[in-house]
Amino acid sequence: MTVATQADELKAVLAALGGPRVLVPTMGALHDGHLALIRHAKTLAGAHGTVVVSIFVNPIQFDRAADLAAYPRPLEADLAACRGAGVAVVFAPTAQAMYFPDRSVTVSESQLSRNLCGAARPGHFDGVCTVVLKLFLLCGCQMAVFGDKDFQQLAVIRRMVRDLDVPVAIIAHPTVREADGLAMSSRNVRLNPAQRADAPRLRQALLAAQADLQGGIRPPEVVLATARQAIEASALARVDYLALADAESLETVTRVERPALLAAAVFYGEVRLIDHVRIEP
Amino acid sequence: MTVATQADELKAVLAALGGPRVLVPTMGALHDGHLALIRHAKTLAGAHGTVVVSIFVNPIQFDRAADLAAYPRPLEADLAACRGAGVAVVFAPTAQAMYFPDRSVTVSESQLSRNLCGAARPGHFDGVCTVVLKLFLLCGCQMAVFGDKDFQQLAVIRRMVRDLDVPVAIIAHPTVREADGLAMSSRNVRLNPAQRADAPRLRQALLAAQADLQGGIRPPEVVLATARQAIEASALARVDYLALADAESLETVTRVERPALLAAAVFYGEVRLIDHVRIEP
Repeated sequence: MTVATQADELKAVLAALGGPRVLVPTMGALHDGHLALIRHAKTLAGAHGTVVVSIFVNPIQFDRAADLAAYPRPLEADLAACRGAGVAVVFAPTAQAMYFPDRSVTVSESQLSRNLCGAARPGHFDGVCTVVLKLFLLCGCQMAVFGDKDFQQLAVIRRMVRDLDVPVAIIAHPTVREADGLAMSSRNVRLNPAQRADAPRLRQALLAAQADLQGGIRPPEVVLATARQAIEASALARVDYLALADAESLETVTRVERPALLAAAVFYGEVRLIDHVRIEP
Repeated sequence: MTVATQADELKAVLAALGGPRVLVPTMGALHDGHLALIRHAKTLAGAHGTVVVSIFVNPIQFDRAADLAAYPRPLEADLAACRGAGVAVVFAPTAQAMYFPDRSVTVSESQLSRNLCGAARPGHFDGVCTVVLKLFLLCGCQMAVFGDKDFQQLAVIRRMVRDLDVPVAIIAHPTVREADGLAMSSRNVRLNPAQRADAPRLRQALLAAQADLQGGIRPPEVVLATARQAIEASALARVDYLALADAESLETVTRVERPALLAAAVFYGEVRLIDHVRIEP
């Protein structure tokens, strides 16, 4: 496994490798969810292709300095995990290697990124679009694999690829969960034991609301209020948003007449977790 | 020569052609300046490479609807010129082929695009960055040739390529001029005979100011005022801006302590012409 920390180094390594190139962009702190993405990427790359995992805690997508500072960065463990998963190339640049001090170019998305996490995290998706496009162009990949947990990120990146004619196929992978249903996230390690014990309520509340909405007995606003109460029944949790949104436009809706998402972001102390369920009309 | 009007068509044509690929992005209404860019591109592509000329009047870079509507579009003559110049592939898409009705992704540059033409034409350079990146990615070119007349566009595109890690080498070609010194531009055909006779004053005033500034006898503000008067001595001309700017940052300066540009945009009726000279300290 080769670890490149500079763009030139990455390009030199990749120039010698053939076949389809599949990128798994990560911010490190790799968990079983990431490993599932990597396994999927290996299948896509086939016997002759190359899986590239990028590990970069992208400063320009963080809206809160404390969140950026606290984001876990266990690089040695991450590299061991990549090695164990049979990854060919890891790209782990520093912020200095990725951004010039006088950088002035941004890729932004103005529709799908407005609501939900976009409303709560100003500038977040501009940072995501900008870094993901840079990683695509640096790797020259034909495919890239993203987790469905970050559904809004996935929608925004697909839109970026469509609108800018980026020659990369975007492959989604289902959310991987802990035994108790909590969506795997690099942020989970920052939960204290009480918060960690409480966090599965988020998934439970979403599943209950999903059943309720698909049953169609109670109106959505009542179902959403119940879900919010179920999550905030714990004093440890604070709902950042809980919203019913059109699955395609991500605009909030009051009725489910087309495929929709029930999505939530919840703070446990300083740690913000997200999850969602799909709602069929 | 193959003419593609859709992205898929372009990709299919290019897939069959080898060697380095050199793009000359144009808005059509090709003149001898464009032909000089094409000749330079042919040299860069060499015997085995491919020159692609794009012809696309990009709606999203026009800040004035009247300018967009009046922009010349002599497609048949342009194709004949490309054929005559030995171009292999022309990409001439419609606006519908380039932009989805619900497009929502923009590439923007926030420093080099603020002053000069950027201040006079809000949104212009966002439109330029967005379309140029799309053309680069659609063509998969390794090189692209731009005229130095549009010096700010060139600076902004170089910054975009640097900041987004776009794998395209940007090649500049000197401004090509009419016998009387007027910089060649697709907009020149829109000048009436009186305006056309007057337009070389712009170049003459810039050259006189250049000599004056490099002589260092009179202070820059006096030199600029004299140049403005010389241009506006004709009732047909209205100066949009006339500015002394740092050659690298494009910030306006009051003294020439580093390489600078004296740049101007002048309206002749509805037609806006630009030109510039370099000033050495």
